[in-house]
Amino acid sequence: MRLRGRKGIRESLEEQTDLVILDPRSLKGRWSELFGNDHPIHVEFGMGKGQFISRMSFKYPDINFIGVDMYDELIRRAAEKARAVWEPAGQETPPNLRVALANINYAEEVFAPAELERIYLNFSDPWPKSKHARRRLTHPRFLDKYRGLLSPLGEIHLKTDSRSLFEFSLNAFADYGLQMKNISLDLHPDGVMNEEHVMTEYETKFFGRGVNIHRCEAIVGAEALARYQATRLDKYRL
Amino acid sequence: MRLRGRKGIRESLEEQTDLVILDPRSLKGRWSELFGNDHPIHVEFGMGKGQFISRMSFKYPDINFIGVDMYDELIRRAAEKARAVWEPAGQETPPNLRVALANINYAEEVFAPAELERIYLNFSDPWPKSKHARRRLTHPRFLDKYRGLLSPLGEIHLKTDSRSLFEFSLNAFADYGLQMKNISLDLHPDGVMNEEHVMTEYETKFFGRGVNIHRCEAIVGAEALARYQATRLDKYRL
Repeated sequence: MRLRGRKGIRESLEEQTDLVILDPRSLKGRWSELFGNDHPIHVEFGMGKGQFISRMSFKYPDINFIGVDMYDELIRRAAEKARAVWEPAGQETPPNLRVALANINYAEEVFAPAELERIYLNFSDPWPKSKHARRRLTHPRFLDKYRGLLSPLGEIHLKTDSRSLFEFSLNAFADYGLQMKNISLDLHPDGVMNEEHVMTEYETKFFGRGVNIHRCEAIVGAEALARYQATRLDKYRL
Repeated sequence: MRLRGRKGIRESLEEQTDLVILDPRSLKGRWSELFGNDHPIHVEFGMGKGQFISRMSFKYPDINFIGVDMYDELIRRAAEKARAVWEPAGQETPPNLRVALANINYAEEVFAPAELERIYLNFSDPWPKSKHARRRLTHPRFLDKYRGLLSPLGEIHLKTDSRSLFEFSLNAFADYGLQMKNISLDLHPDGVMNEEHVMTEYETKFFGRGVNIHRCEAIVGAEALARYQATRLDKYRL
């Protein structure tokens, strides 16, 4: 599908009803219905230009992905990216991906309680000034929201190049009482790309410059916690 | 007190019965008796040349400190450092400090259950090869030991310049189910010395070269955990 120039962004988005969700509130509690199956739903809050969520949807066909951002222009670019990633497979419409226009501050108006299984936060704005701490997407006021939206298998996966945001997030997760796992202070050690993890645009760019990437997973759901705790010490061969 | 040269290290240590403990097993369960009071006992495992534990003992007179290391030469230097730190106060013998010769692998032969309130691990050997992971002082097999030695108010305070050891330790604390707090990925941000924290010799040297210092506290004791959990979200002003 050929996309229009900047002038007609909104019109272009309105035409892409197969991929772009401009009124996500209308789907609250009905996202599985939209996808037509009961696969787990993974959401990226702040998807930017959409490379990560597009590639994830292609790599994991049995998971439904929703990329969320609050600017028309990013939605346009993410939709374009999504089609580009899926085109070689002969799919004009990615079957398990939607990009949605929404403000994360109102996430609970877009998703019903326990509707999500995973939340990705990739290279979120670090808001370095302490007076802006409440705007960081791992501030406990957001963790409150996420806890409400995540299922018993729910997890939050965070990736950032910002040492200050990562430090804040580790403390916030710990203070919030979340079990953390797979904490990495250098996701691509010695400058060797870690192929296990799908990269964002930002990450691709900064990886090339040798910037250090931090990553961490935080368990929110009770079932996920029980499963992890049952085996969490096995890898240490006590 | 004038100390002898290297040749007579053991003899010199044997003379310093006011400060140096060469047979710490004999004091298991009786350290408070040795100090002559019931103040909390803080131990540094791997004190090296003793700058940290000496300065801590001077800064916090109401806490009893024990510096542990396994080499005569380090015990000698730490004793020398301890006297140098306390000399300006007119005290030849630091009243609340002992340096002890012991191997941390046998810590439970030196300290009785719940005898300690805090364990400091400063710039411990990172043992970077994964086949040596079991030797890292934050490996769960050591955490098992520490848990046995720490009181209901017990905590572990870790400081290191090694990103790999810090990453390993964060995961180990999390996997071990310990509440973490005050996680710092850059203890002296922007090259400004954080005066709140007493520095080790190693830290002083590397701080001058702009090396990044990581720090973290892990709560082990049930009473310390209850106290922390009661207020841990207050600082976020939800």
